[in-house]
Amino acid sequence: MFAKRTELLKASEVRELLKLTGKAEIISFGGGLPAEESFPVEEMREICDEILRDCGAKSMQYAVSEGYAGLRENIRELMGQKGIYVNSEDILITTGSQQGLDLTAKVFLDEGDTVLCESPTYLSAINAFKPFYPRFAEVEMDEDGLVPEALIRRLEENSRVKLLYTVPDYQNPTGRRMSLERRRAIAEIANEYDFIIIEDNPYSELCFDNIKLPPIKSFDTQGRVVYLSTFSKTVCPGYRVGWACASPGIINKYVLFKQGTDIHTNYFAQMQIARYLEKYDIQAHIRSNVQIYKSRRDAMLDTIEKTFPREVTYTRPEGGMFLWVTLPEEVNTKVLLKKSLRRGVAFVQGSAFFPNGGHENTMRLNFSGLSEEKIIKGISILGELLKEELSLA
Amino acid sequence: MFAKRTELLKASEVRELLKLTGKAEIISFGGGLPAEESFPVEEMREICDEILRDCGAKSMQYAVSEGYAGLRENIRELMGQKGIYVNSEDILITTGSQQGLDLTAKVFLDEGDTVLCESPTYLSAINAFKPFYPRFAEVEMDEDGLVPEALIRRLEENSRVKLLYTVPDYQNPTGRRMSLERRRAIAEIANEYDFIIIEDNPYSELCFDNIKLPPIKSFDTQGRVVYLSTFSKTVCPGYRVGWACASPGIINKYVLFKQGTDIHTNYFAQMQIARYLEKYDIQAHIRSNVQIYKSRRDAMLDTIEKTFPREVTYTRPEGGMFLWVTLPEEVNTKVLLKKSLRRGVAFVQGSAFFPNGGHENTMRLNFSGLSEEKIIKGISILGELLKEELSLA
Repeated sequence: MFAKRTELLKASEVRELLKLTGKAEIISFGGGLPAEESFPVEEMREICDEILRDCGAKSMQYAVSEGYAGLRENIRELMGQKGIYVNSEDILITTGSQQGLDLTAKVFLDEGDTVLCESPTYLSAINAFKPFYPRFAEVEMDEDGLVPEALIRRLEENSRVKLLYTVPDYQNPTGRRMSLERRRAIAEIANEYDFIIIEDNPYSELCFDNIKLPPIKSFDTQGRVVYLSTFSKTVCPGYRVGWACASPGIINKYVLFKQGTDIHTNYFAQMQIARYLEKYDIQAHIRSNVQIYKSRRDAMLDTIEKTFPREVTYTRPEGGMFLWVTLPEEVNTKVLLKKSLRRGVAFVQGSAFFPNGGHENTMRLNFSGLSEEKIIKGISILGELLKEELSLA
Repeated sequence: MFAKRTELLKASEVRELLKLTGKAEIISFGGGLPAEESFPVEEMREICDEILRDCGAKSMQYAVSEGYAGLRENIRELMGQKGIYVNSEDILITTGSQQGLDLTAKVFLDEGDTVLCESPTYLSAINAFKPFYPRFAEVEMDEDGLVPEALIRRLEENSRVKLLYTVPDYQNPTGRRMSLERRRAIAEIANEYDFIIIEDNPYSELCFDNIKLPPIKSFDTQGRVVYLSTFSKTVCPGYRVGWACASPGIINKYVLFKQGTDIHTNYFAQMQIARYLEKYDIQAHIRSNVQIYKSRRDAMLDTIEKTFPREVTYTRPEGGMFLWVTLPEEVNTKVLLKKSLRRGVAFVQGSAFFPNGGHENTMRLNFSGLSEEKIIKGISILGELLKEELSLA
């Protein structure tokens, strides 16, 4: 009865864990929730009132698939600040950047095409692409992100490479930031080997050390980088407002599939974000968010340092929301998760982030969505468990 | 570079026409806009304020893919009023009912599967399904909707029939309502021939003659009807809030693909609709909308009667937003549309609604989105043009 692709997908462990977080007693490092304390609630209250007062029924009507012109113009400006100079016509408003991934699959992927991605990569990108039956070829990373030499090896080994999917800033799940040299190198490799780069960049603003690197798209000389981003991490995720930016020949295809996918993104929500950008200083808002996230990262790193066994290694992200833990090979985090849940602590097992499986000894920890107190408590419990596990092993 | 499926889609003519409607001088019967006068603007102004006051940051946070529990419960009650008795767990909130179609394709369609549909059928359903490479087999209609005998013929002729897509109430594009007997018969045929029915029912509440027929799903004895609907036509379309209702084994698959498609529907928008349903009498609201739509339909039918040449036939819908015009075979509405636009009137050429093409002599007219004055003016212009065309032919 069902399509074959239904066999390819399992329920997102992150989402299933989100349901767990509904239970107050669980300390969940599994989700990817931005800090609620940072949401501009009172500002939105004013904004909603203003939109309904000024635009009335128009804000509730059907709208064009491309998105609200005012918001596209705001985004054009934001992109310019990052060194990406485009027209607002090159921007499509998407229903979160997750929809950017779904549209990417529809626009580019034929069955059997090769998708290159970091190893590990964003779980929900795998789930967005898989229904279109690509092959995944994973590219090794190090602390500076995707390794260009490894990318070239994969290009030589694989046929039908359609696209590279990459999260250069504070990658989900590892928290790693790709170096400036590599960004430039990868844009050049794409020109040489003729493939598309999907640059998924939701976390770039959440930068802790003030070293903001230019996006890969700023090195795009041939219109072959599709840039995806979102307001989920800078304003709020519940409104599901993101965008895709690409050259006109590409973005027009995205618009075409957007029509059959959900016609257009919530028009009121687009107006809410646009008015927020116009009325308030989003950079100041982000700076205060970043303080929260940085403190939480510090709390997590400090507690890991104090409580995790020596054999455990982990990343030290300079931004974003996640860090990545590698345990000795004999530990299986799927088994560990069950034990951990019994003690009231959740995380995501790392194997979920490898499209071709394996790496059972890894896990992703989120530090953005919990108070420092909870982070310290939860990480200490996890450290205790890990010590027991490793002394047993 | 692009996937093969990009060749299958053309820009939706309705959407392209929507852009035209931006120009004030065009009278467009091409769109499918609900009457803006009917939107509950002041009510929403209160509601936004209350949600942000009562729920604050929670209304801006990530949420579960299934949808806001309160809204799912409201919908369960609405479904019960239609004779569909389900649990709220059988309901998934979708980003408009358009997303219900995209998810339907993902859940059910393998390349080469047969989709049965009314002839003509909803343009954007064709566009949602096509990227997954089904074959379409069109089933004849008459004034009582899809003809069951024709459905059986198609079932005998075609292999791999996966699903029947049908819009039983005031179908887009014809405005026809399927008779009670046929609803029952089609549910039985699905049991006998083992296929899924996608019952797309956005217009059922927009009923002019007070004869509300039970949905096909109310005759579903084997859990094989997926019911799709939306608040676009009863509250407002800009918020993109719809739903899918199906048996647990099916709805779980929809949820799985929803995660990779846009994670979840705008949470604030779900709360807006839920609170609207709780605070206000939606049935009273719909009754007043229906008065507007009925008057507009009357204005359109009256003017057609007075101004269209005798050879032209058309439907007389008892609800919904559209009527369907059939011209003599020698008239090509694609050619006609260009002439009509020059005189400031737009419509959608009917051939767009036939997945296998043809029927160049048909057109769809929308009556919900324009004032009676504009309807009378625009239809008169169209009538004049048709008279000239037919006297030339």
